[in-house]
Amino acid sequence: MNTLLVLGGARSGKSRYAQTRAEALDGELVFVATGQALDAEMADRIARHRADRGPRWITVEAPIELAAAVRSESREDRVLLIDCLTLWTTNLLLAERDIPAAAEALIAAIADAAGPLILVANEVGLGIVPDNPLARRFRDEAGRVNQQVAAAVDGVVFVAAGLPLKLK
Amino acid sequence: MNTLLVLGGARSGKSRYAQTRAEALDGELVFVATGQALDAEMADRIARHRADRGPRWITVEAPIELAAAVRSESREDRVLLIDCLTLWTTNLLLAERDIPAAAEALIAAIADAAGPLILVANEVGLGIVPDNPLARRFRDEAGRVNQQVAAAVDGVVFVAAGLPLKLK
Amino acid sequence: MNTLLVLGGARSGKSRYAQTRAEALDGELVFVATGQALDAEMADRIARHRADRGPRWITVEAPIELAAAVRSESREDRVLLIDCLTLWTTNLLLAERDIPAAAEALIAAIADAAGPLILVANEVGLGIVPDNPLARRFRDEAGRVNQQVAAAVDGVVFVAAGLPLKLK
Repeated sequence: MNTLLVLGGARSGKSRYAQTRAEALDGELVFVATGQALDAEMADRIARHRADRGPRWITVEAPIELAAAVRSESREDRVLLIDCLTLWTTNLLLAERDIPAAAEALIAAIADAAGPLILVANEVGLGIVPDNPLARRFRDEAGRVNQQVAAAVDGVVFVAAGLPLKLK
Repeated sequence: MNTLLVLGGARSGKSRYAQTRAEALDGELVFVATGQALDAEMADRIARHRADRGPRWITVEAPIELAAAVRSESREDRVLLIDCLTLWTTNLLLAERDIPAAAEALIAAIADAAGPLILVANEVGLGIVPDNPLARRFRDEAGRVNQQVAAAVDGVVFVAAGLPLKLK
Repeated sequence: MNTLLVLGGARSGKSRYAQTRAEALDGELVFVATGQALDAEMADRIARHRADRGPRWITVEAPIELAAAVRSESREDRVLLIDCLTLWTTNLLLAERDIPAAAEALIAAIADAAGPLILVANEVGLGIVPDNPLARRFRDEAGRVNQQVAAAVDGVVFVAAGLPLKLK
């Protein structure tokens, strides 16, 4: 399997599962981080995640220009782990970018990737309808990105309580 | 399979999956819509969904009287797609109807249906507990309707990121 | 299978599924309740659940000291049903207890249990990010407890609309 999407909820163990899958592959390990430390809570979370990954990983930041990062970083002897598509969607939404166009560019970059790619995404549509319109729009955009990427990759797993369930 | 329940989150691709399943069957295609255009956002969503379905479909509206619509519309040479049970539950709640009684009437109508039925429902119970009591009651009622209908139909699938997972 | 974790959303049928699994086993049935009747809505829910279980069950309350309850109640000829871990996490959070330490103590008690154990937990991480920091912290802690317990038990199922899906 060359491209894998790992879907899951918050604290589902999806990032750890994706890392374990990446570490089982041969090659350099590149973590493509979409998170931005916009506040202390996020900065703390990012620092803990980086420490958890350990020294085998190099980290590249791509909060917005994710397709370009995939194109410039992917190599035959490298495993790229993109964590996560949902933060990327948030960043695009806040930056008022064209999300469908960005998703198409990402999918084209995935198709052209020279080495294996593992992508992590949140499933956010299984609670009640959010009160505020921006949250509803985010939920719609994130769900659409998940569907588009799921259709484009070789494999999809859903992770709950750290355990994977094969969707594709 | 004569009766199928398609469960999924918001923007999970459940409606599209249900339509694809319906279109693969022989017979006239009847879309039983439970959504009501109560505001501009809903009206826009309904119009887009109707355009997405295309001209093969005829649409019947049944925001409240769903069991009666199933009884009057179901025929041996017709496929009924009911989208969705969760909006119907919302409508019943807002109209202060007896939801368990309405669900029982629906299940009796499903059992008596002359042709295939596909029902779509939202899974809404996988986020944190909502702050407001009405949202909690809605979540409980929607979950109960899903359980009752799931027990009554031949097949149930859970859709995430456009991909089906067989539950029954 | 000696230890089973049943995961699911609100009104997913997870408690009923767990009870059915417990009732299919030989031995005395002990319900270990973590819920506390802090308000009328909770008190009503607890009373309804107790009535639903019927007279075959004896009930023990363990809102905080769950590991101790497992140690004192587990016997070779008894089935313990713990419902649920997520309310227990809520109680620990409100009581400002050390949740990771409590989870480790619980896992040690599970490992030492003399008879079968069935544990119920909510999956709460599949909606959008909650606005308030306490809800976010709760969501993180609940997800971590689910992952830890899922790793420690023999079997894990995810229940949606009353139907189980095997995760482990």
